[in-house]
Amino acid sequence: MKPLTPSNKRPIVTLMTDFGLSDAYVGMMKGVIIGIVPRAHLIDLTHDIPPQNVLSAAWILATAYRYFPQRTVHICVVDPGVGSSRQAIALHAGDWFFVGPDNGLFSYILMEQTIQTAVNLSNSNYHLPQVSATFHGRDLFAPVGAHLARGASINQLGTPIDPATLQRLDIASPTRQETHIDAHIVHVDHFGNLITTIPLTLVPDLFSNETSAQLLKLIFPTHNIVVERFNRFFSAGLDDGQPFIYNDSSGYLGIAIRNGNAAQALNVIPGTPIIFLTEHNDS
Amino acid sequence: MKPLTPSNKRPIVTLMTDFGLSDAYVGMMKGVIIGIVPRAHLIDLTHDIPPQNVLSAAWILATAYRYFPQRTVHICVVDPGVGSSRQAIALHAGDWFFVGPDNGLFSYILMEQTIQTAVNLSNSNYHLPQVSATFHGRDLFAPVGAHLARGASINQLGTPIDPATLQRLDIASPTRQETHIDAHIVHVDHFGNLITTIPLTLVPDLFSNETSAQLLKLIFPTHNIVVERFNRFFSAGLDDGQPFIYNDSSGYLGIAIRNGNAAQALNVIPGTPIIFLTEHNDS
Amino acid sequence: MKPLTPSNKRPIVTLMTDFGLSDAYVGMMKGVIIGIVPRAHLIDLTHDIPPQNVLSAAWILATAYRYFPQRTVHICVVDPGVGSSRQAIALHAGDWFFVGPDNGLFSYILMEQTIQTAVNLSNSNYHLPQVSATFHGRDLFAPVGAHLARGASINQLGTPIDPATLQRLDIASPTRQETHIDAHIVHVDHFGNLITTIPLTLVPDLFSNETSAQLLKLIFPTHNIVVERFNRFFSAGLDDGQPFIYNDSSGYLGIAIRNGNAAQALNVIPGTPIIFLTEHNDS
Repeated sequence: MKPLTPSNKRPIVTLMTDFGLSDAYVGMMKGVIIGIVPRAHLIDLTHDIPPQNVLSAAWILATAYRYFPQRTVHICVVDPGVGSSRQAIALHAGDWFFVGPDNGLFSYILMEQTIQTAVNLSNSNYHLPQVSATFHGRDLFAPVGAHLARGASINQLGTPIDPATLQRLDIASPTRQETHIDAHIVHVDHFGNLITTIPLTLVPDLFSNETSAQLLKLIFPTHNIVVERFNRFFSAGLDDGQPFIYNDSSGYLGIAIRNGNAAQALNVIPGTPIIFLTEHNDS
Repeated sequence: MKPLTPSNKRPIVTLMTDFGLSDAYVGMMKGVIIGIVPRAHLIDLTHDIPPQNVLSAAWILATAYRYFPQRTVHICVVDPGVGSSRQAIALHAGDWFFVGPDNGLFSYILMEQTIQTAVNLSNSNYHLPQVSATFHGRDLFAPVGAHLARGASINQLGTPIDPATLQRLDIASPTRQETHIDAHIVHVDHFGNLITTIPLTLVPDLFSNETSAQLLKLIFPTHNIVVERFNRFFSAGLDDGQPFIYNDSSGYLGIAIRNGNAAQALNVIPGTPIIFLTEHNDS
Repeated sequence: MKPLTPSNKRPIVTLMTDFGLSDAYVGMMKGVIIGIVPRAHLIDLTHDIPPQNVLSAAWILATAYRYFPQRTVHICVVDPGVGSSRQAIALHAGDWFFVGPDNGLFSYILMEQTIQTAVNLSNSNYHLPQVSATFHGRDLFAPVGAHLARGASINQLGTPIDPATLQRLDIASPTRQETHIDAHIVHVDHFGNLITTIPLTLVPDLFSNETSAQLLKLIFPTHNIVVERFNRFFSAGLDDGQPFIYNDSSGYLGIAIRNGNAAQALNVIPGTPIIFLTEHNDS
């Protein structure tokens, strides 16, 4: 297979960090990138990852990367180990490139895509002349991502590494039991919607078959909450402050409250366990 | 009249949503757009509209759209009815294009501009192949806006609709009484400045005639607050924590506190009624 | 010396303000700029400067401007005196251009760079036709910066002024005493890291010589806090909630807590004095 190289016309570079927007950290990264590849399109995924929360970053990246054109370079910097011996890496995975620390940030990418190439970013020709011990986003990942976007081959950036050796987070997949699915809340979004780890593909008939939906329930065992309503979209729900299950745009089941914030109302955070009853078991 | 089509050189697409910036929702929309129209300029109006607050979004859009070049495509997604039977629309209004849900978001545009064309976005060739029930921003409005920016005719996007049938918010205009104007606060900005619904054009001599200004007062009847000072700009006010009236850059009267947050100090929110006394009535 | 003019290929314009992102103020500025110079690259430094905090803005600008290519136009608007008689200025300083109010925002630039040209922005041909008294960001600085990016000579923008007459903040430099350095905290970043005014160049051996480090201490005299640990990077610190000194990427000493927020834990804000003991004085 012919290796992908970014288009030189309008290469796309996305940025995801936990740097927030109140300092100029992200701005400096963009200054470095644009100095190397002036034609680049810079697009922010988000910079409001909770500080050092690699798991949250991994999930948000997983929801977003596919919506970008092939050859897009995704620079991701949530990097509590910056300056230590943790590896700095670039991946050519599926149709995209990824640049960041090897700390599990790319766990979903490693699960979902074929890794064509993985390299350790050891070639300092592609770094800033001075690399600080505390801001590799600016000094290492930004210039490496920019050179990749500009057309450098991923193999020039450093030494190849075996993808099997890369760090992966312990991402608990939902487990199907006889009458239920054990899962958990993976993300709380800006609206307070609770996104579960249960893919819609695991319950394909859910929103197409009203009868079966009536037999289903979602339980928060640690909160004594039972959710029995299902709605295809938000405004199909009653405006009564009660939670319902919906098909989230990420491809997973979600729990929402119409015109409300489910996370606040139910006091649920990422990691909260859920039990999804797939058969009516009190018959 | 020759219909506008966006310039193919550097088409401009703006985005306004209530999605916040902590998820990658806005990033995904940009990925979709740039995949369709790689030369586009993407500019954020704001993504911090209070969740589902169509009225606030409509007002902010009204303050901003004119400052963009003709042919700019404004994609606006504050969409509590996403997935329901509410219409998805595109407008060619004045020199600009607007794309979003038909829920009143474009109320000011409909008042202020001539609507050349309005269409219902029924042509699924311009949507993503899979349209979710909960994220039309990504699956429908982003690709439609991108195609419009790329040069598609608005008429290709769907079936024409009569602008008179579009949703309009019940926007209370100020009413002039004999000795006063009844109005309200329409917006609280980042600085806590209170923007009223009273256009400067209704009180044109206010800041040019000091004598008349001395006869005027602004009253918050529900708060027992009277504002009697007028200043052309912020630092003309005394630094004593007292509110004053100023001519806001939106073209409306505002109330501010120098180096302070008027909304917090006065405990005033959007919707709060005001009475503007235009004649000294205790003579 | 040949005066710099911005490249016409992809001129870069950065924006830094205290406008926040919840209104469309920044969006309007970008609309104005892009209407004048459609090929420009617009990059945000930050818009979350605390309202009217010129000192904070000056410092953040100082950390960032060097990371941008030469000819970049930095538009900076933290402007409590907007509308008053404070000057509006443009600078050609070092390899960059700066546009904003003359209120001390550019204090570090004036210290660090050679000022080739400074002008008072008196030529209204480069302003919007109507200039409000409260939003020069949109009506004056944005169009002036855009024209500069488009290739206008800085001398066309107004009348030359003597750089020595420009406003400078009273920036307290660290003072070296016999056994210690008197300094203060200049910035608290998104992570709660405390950045001091002590440049690494003042204590060059700090992280290269473990023995000498053991003799050093940093004291917050107003808080009764002594910091005795030194780490080159964050994850070299113990995860025990105790603060340590590190070499911040800005080039100054910082104080951090591993996986924690030092500002909150220590209750320290910008301006807090520190004493850095450079010799063991209880021997």
